[in-house]
Amino acid sequence: MERTLMEAAVSAAAEGVERQEGGPFGAVVVREGRVIARAWNRVVRDLDPTAHAEVNAIREACRALGRFHLEDCDLVTSCEPCPMCLGAIYWARLRSVTFAAGRDDAAGVGFSDAWIYEELARPPEARTVKFSRVDPESALAVMRRWQADVARQPY
Amino acid sequence: MERTLMEAAVSAAAEGVERQEGGPFGAVVVREGRVIARAWNRVVRDLDPTAHAEVNAIREACRALGRFHLEDCDLVTSCEPCPMCLGAIYWARLRSVTFAAGRDDAAGVGFSDAWIYEELARPPEARTVKFSRVDPESALAVMRRWQADVARQPY
Repeated sequence: MERTLMEAAVSAAAEGVERQEGGPFGAVVVREGRVIARAWNRVVRDLDPTAHAEVNAIREACRALGRFHLEDCDLVTSCEPCPMCLGAIYWARLRSVTFAAGRDDAAGVGFSDAWIYEELARPPEARTVKFSRVDPESALAVMRRWQADVARQPY
Repeated sequence: MERTLMEAAVSAAAEGVERQEGGPFGAVVVREGRVIARAWNRVVRDLDPTAHAEVNAIREACRALGRFHLEDCDLVTSCEPCPMCLGAIYWARLRSVTFAAGRDDAAGVGFSDAWIYEELARPPEARTVKFSRVDPESALAVMRRWQADVARQPY
């Protein structure tokens, strides 16, 4: 079963490469043993740096189910998710992740996954990208207003 | 200048809260001193767990410029980016990030940012979400095929 699902993810990766739509990565979202979303990297086609296979598959699965949580779903992806996709996996509350290639394999063909993992672990002021902070009061006021709204929808 | 840009980001957050479209977060992308994208969190409206303010602003800026890198742009966001958005910032190659509220403030109003940062720093097998790995050979073959393609577009 797991192997068949991985074949679906890898074939999505191959399809994306064939179409020259982005990096060589594919993913599927599975619910009750059935693939409900299948996607590949479309960074180049969509001119969207966030259009990784996992993000695309999560968005497609949410559209298919009409909700923003996938707690009864599993993700199968041809490569270990980068930090962006890992964050998306947690926000989507996916139940499990199965991957094939690793972050070092991605680095081996020219992708920055391993480096971004290192950068994330650093405090903001120690990163390559310049991070600075301004007075948070007005932002905090909006956050508190949201928290006080009884009609708010937490996620 | 920085303060005016942050006001634009915070007003976007306020607009999203007012419309009840998602969490209380807003962001702008700035190029040559001009706001080229302004967005708020739309997770609830779009039923999309990846529709954070920063991701939305990055997507919008890329659409506006017709490219998938923003190396001449800066991001101003009402709250410290979560790991997903931080990953997106690196993939988009933004030059700098200015934020107001911090990850602990986000945790204080019920968002999991701080927890996701902790999870990311763990090796896959030690995370709350179950991670497993299968034979990477077929995935690696697609990655190598991509690397050998002279027409590929690296990003």
